Parts: sequence; structure tokens; C-alpha cells
Amino acid sequence: MNSALQDVKALTFDVFGTVVDWRSSIIREGEELGKRKNLKADWVKFADAWRAGYSPAMDRVRKGELPWMKIDDLHRLILDQLLKDFQVAGLSEAEKDHFNRVWHRLDPWPDSVEGLRRLRKKYVLATLSNGNVSLLVNMAKRAGLPWDCVLSAEVFKHYKPDPEVYSGAAEILGYKPAEVMMVAAHYGDLRAAKATGQKTAFVARPLEYGPGAKVDIDADPPFDVNATSFTDLATKLGL
Amino acid sequence: MNSALQDVKALTFDVFGTVVDWRSSIIREGEELGKRKNLKADWVKFADAWRAGYSPAMDRVRKGELPWMKIDDLHRLILDQLLKDFQVAGLSEAEKDHFNRVWHRLDPWPDSVEGLRRLRKKYVLATLSNGNVSLLVNMAKRAGLPWDCVLSAEVFKHYKPDPEVYSGAAEILGYKPAEVMMVAAHYGDLRAAKATGQKTAFVARPLEYGPGAKVDIDADPPFDVNATSFTDLATKLGL
Repeated sequence: MNSALQDVKALTFDVFGTVVDWRSSIIREGEELGKRKNLKADWVKFADAWRAGYSPAMDRVRKGELPWMKIDDLHRLILDQLLKDFQVAGLSEAEKDHFNRVWHRLDPWPDSVEGLRRLRKKYVLATLSNGNVSLLVNMAKRAGLPWDCVLSAEVFKHYKPDPEVYSGAAEILGYKPAEVMMVAAHYGDLRAAKATGQKTAFVARPLEYGPGAKVDIDADPPFDVNATSFTDLATKLGL
Repeated sequence: MNSALQDVKALTFDVFGTVVDWRSSIIREGEELGKRKNLKADWVKFADAWRAGYSPAMDRVRKGELPWMKIDDLHRLILDQLLKDFQVAGLSEAEKDHFNRVWHRLDPWPDSVEGLRRLRKKYVLATLSNGNVSLLVNMAKRAGLPWDCVLSAEVFKHYKPDPEVYSGAAEILGYKPAEVMMVAAHYGDLRAAKATGQKTAFVARPLEYGPGAKVDIDADPPFDVNATSFTDLATKLGL
């Protein structure tokens, strides 16, 4: 193990795409909903469009164009527009609300739970997601993700990549920046954490956007650890 | 089970005194420190005085006389005064800091872990303590307390019994007030939760302040559940 990592006490995790496979989960629930309600929609495109709406919506909050809103509410804003765009009609308010909470029911990547269990023996494990606390708690309970602490942009009232989120996580966990390592499948997230003095671990998730999609995949950038899965990360950290 | 409790989805827990036995833990570490450093102090009185300083210190924050300070820092303010009062000298800064963090190393009551494990099968379990997040995370990791979520006054920047703490917990967990039940060994905490529309479970901890001390013990007040331990609470909730 890289000697600069010997001071690391806590690992913070990006969640959407890094811990869980949002795309397959949403496609599956969309297809189930479509069958049950006899809806004709392209649920693959629907899932990708839902996710694509997420960054611009958060940016409107980050720039102050929208007041603080949690991801559940941003997801619902996007969903309401997509139901029109994809001409999906006939859903009750309860059905829309339930479908919106599919983001609470995302499945982990196959290595996530085992990797986290191994990492937890040595490190404090915390989420550090733009997802709201209830979303992350419900997801963890359903999927068996063994967090020591659920941290969210919601706690800091800032969305990643604002530095307040990374610095706030280190402070609330009681560690110096260099004692915290951010784990993510996205370069931007890691670079923002690194800019606050934290360590970084890249975990490649080549299928996050489906087969053939262009995603962050190279291990080249100067992160402290480059891994291919959470179990590989555990091994590289000596666990 | 009381039918009014059928809507309860999440249990929030007071921690000091309700989940953990702060007094025995502090006395034990004080005595160990005293032996190691050849200090003569009455560690029973020391522990009680440390705890007694806690409410007035928090009240100064609640009234705005002090800026927001986390419990670790309030504990340290009190500790520094007590070291003078009890004429405990010769501790290095590192030793003082370590002793101050005894509050991160409190032992659970014997029924706490088993009771929480049973309750977790049905309910979302969250701390709702005036202790800061890192204190609660470190405590849980050491003691094996299976929280789904660590919530703290620190997240809401208000100390209990301010209503913002209870209401904030329900909101961040995504539940209506009546879907949340506060669990505590102290009437005041439960009454404050009840005033925000939440359910309440009293768990008697007759030994919190040592044998013979006068503490909240009667099951009379109108709480939704009255239990003698966390395992008894689990049984009374049908688990």
C-alpha cells in the first residue's frame, strides 16, 4: 500500500454509479411498470434521460436559481417532464411517487457489499452522495450496504462538486482532510475531493451508462488508488 | 401492539443513558488513567460532575450565549475545569484529548445491541443524540450498534429539547411525525418529541446515575410504550 495512505481513517463514497447500478435498476422497474399499466415507452432511453436531467437540475440549485431542494424533489421535477415527453399517461399520484422512489431501490454492483464489508474492518465508511439522506438510508437497508454513517449533500446544503461537501464530511467525521479518502467512479468528483486535501480512489464502472458508452475508465489520472471493483480496492488497501 | 403504533416506520434513540452506560464507562477509564499516571481523584464524583456540566453548557448554546459548539468541545471545556477542581495535574495535551474522547468509547447497556438488532428487522433505526456525529459513529463502530442512520443535534445545529431536532429528524428520514417514535430514558426528551407529533417509547434505565440515584423510572406518564429494556421494547413491538 502507498505509504501516503497509512493515515487514511475514513472512506467516503459516491453512490450513484459507484456503489449502485442506477441504470439497470430503473430500466427494470420501468419495464415492470410498463407491463403492469400497459404503457409503451422506451425505458432504456427513459432511464438515461432521467439521469441526464439530474446534473442541470442540481446546477440550478448550486447557482441559486432554485432554492435548496433534495434529490427526491429534483427527480420528481424531471420525472413529471419525462412522463410528458415519453407520452406516459394514466399514472396516479401514488404510482408516480412510488416510481420516483425507484432511486431508493437501486441495486448495488455485484462486488459492492462484499467490498464494503471488507473495507469496514479497518475504515469508517460513509456515503458522500448528492442523494438525500432518506434515499440513502432506504437504499442501504434494502441492499445491505454496511455504512457506518450516511452523509449527504442534504446535510451540508451544498451539492457536489462544491468543496463544502467534501470539507464538511471530513469535519463532521472528525478527521483531517488527508485522513479521508473519497471513492468514486467519476474523475470530477475525485478531483474536487483532492482539491480539499483528501486522498482519492478511482473505481472503474465501465457499464454505468450501458455497454459501449463513453465513461471515465482510465486509471491514468493521478489518484492515490485505481481499482476495478470494491473487492479490488479492499485488496489494494491490504484487506 | 397499540394500534396507534402501526404507522411507525422509524425509531429514533437518545443515546447517553438510554443506549450506553456513560457513568460506568467514564469511572472505569478514569480509574485506569489514575493508576497509570498515579493520580488521586474520586473518579465517581468526577464522572458525575462531568455529566452535570453538560446541560448548563448546552443551554448556553441554546440561548445563544455561546456560538454553535459540538459536544466534544463542550466536554473539553468542562473537563479542563474539572481537572483544576479535582486537582488532576500532569496530563499532556494528547492525554487530555484522549480522555475527552472517552465519550466516544462508552459501553452499551447489556440489552442494547440485541434489542437494536431485533428492532432493525422492522424499523429504520437512527440515533437522535446531542452527541456529535463523529462521537456517535466511533461509539457505534466500537460497540457494534447497528444504526441505519446516525443523526445528531450537530446536523440540525440545535440541541435537544429544541423542537427543530425532532422535526428535523422526521423530515430528513422522509417520514411524517406520527411515523417516528422517539426512544429515551428521560421524560423531558420524550415530551419534547411528543410535542412535535411523534410517538414515544420510554425505556427505564434505573442505574444511569448509579445505585439509589433518583431518575425517571415510573411507567406512568402517557407514553405510547413503556419498556424495561431494548429487548423488552422489541417484544412489545412484536419482534
